[in-house]
Amino acid sequence: MVTVAVDAGGADKGAVEVAAGAAEAVRGGQIRVLLFGDESEIGSVPQGVEVRHAPVSIAKAADPASAVRTTPQASVVQAARAVAAGEADAFVSGGSTGAALAAGVLHIRRQPGVHRPALALMVPVPGAPVLLLDVGASTEVRVERLVQHAHMGAAFGEAVFGMDRPRVALLSNGEEATRGTPEVIAAHALLAADERIHFVGNVEGVGIADGRADVIVTDGFTGNVALKLMEGVSSAVVEAIRSAATSDPRAAAGALLLRPALGGLKDQLDPEAHGGAHLLGLRKVAVVPHGRFGARGYSKAILLAAESVNSGAIERTHAALAAAGVLRGS
Amino acid sequence: MVTVAVDAGGADKGAVEVAAGAAEAVRGGQIRVLLFGDESEIGSVPQGVEVRHAPVSIAKAADPASAVRTTPQASVVQAARAVAAGEADAFVSGGSTGAALAAGVLHIRRQPGVHRPALALMVPVPGAPVLLLDVGASTEVRVERLVQHAHMGAAFGEAVFGMDRPRVALLSNGEEATRGTPEVIAAHALLAADERIHFVGNVEGVGIADGRADVIVTDGFTGNVALKLMEGVSSAVVEAIRSAATSDPRAAAGALLLRPALGGLKDQLDPEAHGGAHLLGLRKVAVVPHGRFGARGYSKAILLAAESVNSGAIERTHAALAAAGVLRGS
Repeated sequence: MVTVAVDAGGADKGAVEVAAGAAEAVRGGQIRVLLFGDESEIGSVPQGVEVRHAPVSIAKAADPASAVRTTPQASVVQAARAVAAGEADAFVSGGSTGAALAAGVLHIRRQPGVHRPALALMVPVPGAPVLLLDVGASTEVRVERLVQHAHMGAAFGEAVFGMDRPRVALLSNGEEATRGTPEVIAAHALLAADERIHFVGNVEGVGIADGRADVIVTDGFTGNVALKLMEGVSSAVVEAIRSAATSDPRAAAGALLLRPALGGLKDQLDPEAHGGAHLLGLRKVAVVPHGRFGARGYSKAILLAAESVNSGAIERTHAALAAAGVLRGS
Repeated sequence: MVTVAVDAGGADKGAVEVAAGAAEAVRGGQIRVLLFGDESEIGSVPQGVEVRHAPVSIAKAADPASAVRTTPQASVVQAARAVAAGEADAFVSGGSTGAALAAGVLHIRRQPGVHRPALALMVPVPGAPVLLLDVGASTEVRVERLVQHAHMGAAFGEAVFGMDRPRVALLSNGEEATRGTPEVIAAHALLAADERIHFVGNVEGVGIADGRADVIVTDGFTGNVALKLMEGVSSAVVEAIRSAATSDPRAAAGALLLRPALGGLKDQLDPEAHGGAHLLGLRKVAVVPHGRFGARGYSKAILLAAESVNSGAIERTHAALAAAGVLRGS
């Protein structure tokens, strides 16, 4: 039995959707959920879900780090503290990545030797999903973080997503070792000389979408821009096809015939089907679903968190970082 | 009559494709082309195209800047020198952005007061094309360059693409003025206080694809990653749809009916239809088509260069930068 502490305070669709997701996640009997949110909003829950009344949300706070420090009663803070106290094994909080990150770092705390946590997401690419990190935990670029995140992503991909000796790449503006910012060039040299990682070099933006790497490492600024751009372009293309499909009766008939075959593609591109991003580098599993997710997305996020606990992701990642000698102070 | 100096040395498909593009571009009688490449490869050309024998290509050089300095006979260098000497009004060179940039800076030279040239491209987004810069001229991030590039992009969008008081945005990892790298935050503050530009704030990656800005400014590293990611995601989605459409007879029949309505979308997403990127900040018009372009793409690039000359893009951009007080030393 895995216990997941879930913050219901940041969901755009309200705590009741998060509660419905929790109810779905506990159905199999393998997961228990501590649900932090407004009791009156949440209403009744099935066995396996325990509501902890936490009506204060800081998901909209302009300065999440400060709000986390000054609002101990906030739902996200209480959920993180439950994990820190050992009451729960994993942390799920959507709606404000900044608040989830700040609460995670302050209460669950970083693994010893980790420079900065990274937000890692299996990005929805048709046919070739890839683990991209950092997609927005930190906008500062440091060589040692890129190197550490490469090892973190590889170890995590093996533990949670069943990757076999994952191919790790750096995102850059050219494939040659000499291309990129000074930090990317320096990280490339270190990773290329490192036998403990299956480093395949730089990939350009197109490489995110063509399956040539399993794990792609970049800084949180570039990663966040890239992630949201992918979502935007996918939507724009799908929308343009939808619009073409309703432009005349002939096209509409064609779309109707084509639709069943396109169903799988829609699922592949749906961020909600993936459950959200992992916050890597903390002492416990932390998953950040998108604030706009409904019950299905929150349910997936809770299942993903529980699977990560069961696969020993934290321990395996830490052991890999220690073996590679990339922990701070090692 | 506009004369365009075209480097035929970097095209993946060979100089003969570039020559075919030049022949197409001069057909209307408004353009003359000086074509720099291997005479024997190019063969016969129509009136209006003048071949200058330049069999040496440095498009594959590992260090383009050094190759430009040490290879005066290279086709890209000769084309740039023809523009610098006043023999031609505009410069077109595809296949090596680094070589085109280096030859442009060395021979055509920067406009006075310009920090660094920027590569600006109308990116293929369905329904809402947007001028993105810098897509790869420089990976160094500087506040004053972001600000100057914002003004350059706006002035150029007005002159060449007929934008009316273009909405200019900075690409960032959040819409708030406080989000982004330190350089983005500082550039945001300067642009927000500047009445001479229609600055609409930050856009996230998704904002590139949703039509909320006409000009989007970023550094050359992020811009290059973003551009290639867009191409990659568009291709992956289109490929997935193609694959779905051939998965069974019913879907294939549907795709056949839908195809005519999708024709416009294909053109919108086709980089070749846009002619390539402008290298902004030089004393003359410079256009960089993709090295994989065929005759059609090169023809578009030559037409785009000629239109830019006719619209007074260089003079208008320089006047706008001077008026905004963002030229170096002003």
